[in-house]
Amino acid sequence: MNFRILDLSQPLGDGSPNCPVHPPVRMPVTADHPADGWRMEEFHMASHTGTHLDAPLHKIAGGKSIDQFPLEAFMAPAVGLDLTGRVTEHTPIDATLLESACAGLELKDRIVLLETGWGRKRAKTVEWLYESPYLSPSGAEWLVAQGVRAVGIDHFSIGGMDDEDNVRTHEILLGAGVWVVEELRFPEGWQEFVAGAVFQALPLHLPGFSGSPCRAVLIQSA
Amino acid sequence: MNFRILDLSQPLGDGSPNCPVHPPVRMPVTADHPADGWRMEEFHMASHTGTHLDAPLHKIAGGKSIDQFPLEAFMAPAVGLDLTGRVTEHTPIDATLLESACAGLELKDRIVLLETGWGRKRAKTVEWLYESPYLSPSGAEWLVAQGVRAVGIDHFSIGGMDDEDNVRTHEILLGAGVWVVEELRFPEGWQEFVAGAVFQALPLHLPGFSGSPCRAVLIQSA
Repeated sequence: MNFRILDLSQPLGDGSPNCPVHPPVRMPVTADHPADGWRMEEFHMASHTGTHLDAPLHKIAGGKSIDQFPLEAFMAPAVGLDLTGRVTEHTPIDATLLESACAGLELKDRIVLLETGWGRKRAKTVEWLYESPYLSPSGAEWLVAQGVRAVGIDHFSIGGMDDEDNVRTHEILLGAGVWVVEELRFPEGWQEFVAGAVFQALPLHLPGFSGSPCRAVLIQSA
Repeated sequence: MNFRILDLSQPLGDGSPNCPVHPPVRMPVTADHPADGWRMEEFHMASHTGTHLDAPLHKIAGGKSIDQFPLEAFMAPAVGLDLTGRVTEHTPIDATLLESACAGLELKDRIVLLETGWGRKRAKTVEWLYESPYLSPSGAEWLVAQGVRAVGIDHFSIGGMDDEDNVRTHEILLGAGVWVVEELRFPEGWQEFVAGAVFQALPLHLPGFSGSPCRAVLIQSA
């Protein structure tokens, strides 16, 4: 059994850029060589930090927590949409744009990955923090109507930074049981790799949690 | 593509039992329905908390950090050793015991999983915290000599709680580039599931870190 794995996860560490509504990311080294004879770090961060999953409970009262999905739900073929030539600051990814980008693609039960280019801008800048393209409520409705299993994007907020749209987009996806993976990183060549690969993003084992950091990857059997 | 996944991870949450040398696990809910209109939690814990990986850097000055392994290293066939009938409080899992338990098994490049029964005792008790069976330095040397890829155990300290042995066991494994996965949970039926399955425990994307929480699983292609 041989595998090839392509990483789709952003690096996480002390001071990583993150959603400004969440606490800052503190991940200090608390013991180190040679003074201590070992090395240790700590995590101080929100559960929705770095590359992470959203469960319905994140935005829906009484919604499923991340441990209420079978683990198999987080492992499925994906469809990769390169939207980098079609979106820029504040562009809504709406039903019309998606219908055009998805022409001829099988979407049912697939994990739809939206590449906006914002993953490569990751820094504490106004552009990255507040100006990302986003999945609009109409885009979310369109994806739910196609029967997708999940949606991923290369920014921390799939619904953008306008509160009303952001809440609606999350509610439409999560309310339909469609889980979300945010802050993906799409490296060169990922569009070629995705065909025939399985997308996987397993949550940590966090009973009752509304989301989880994860290592999002594409796996090909070699 | 269909998969069956068996979880080998301990649940993690606020106040989870953990290594007494590490900070206590604080994972509070910091926003919730209906008051806040959403739900959020925080992580405050060591990087070696819950089911987690050890990279050589954890105990070896200048050793590899967790991101210096290719992700493919964390996905391979496993050998499951049920030692529950052979070990009890403070039992060293030594070369003699392993040689007997592994008779006839192919170990080269395999992930060797040691079930001691301590995973089912997980609680803040003296027994769980301080009295676990452990892989002794001779056991670690024997596994390294067989060319194993990694070693997992159902307790937070593979080398036990005696400092001298614990340091030696970690140094022997990690010094040979054999990564370690600790605090596994072995559910009923895992021994039947492991045959033909792939063990996987991907770290989070943590550049320079000495270890990482992970979701350890067995995956069967259905």
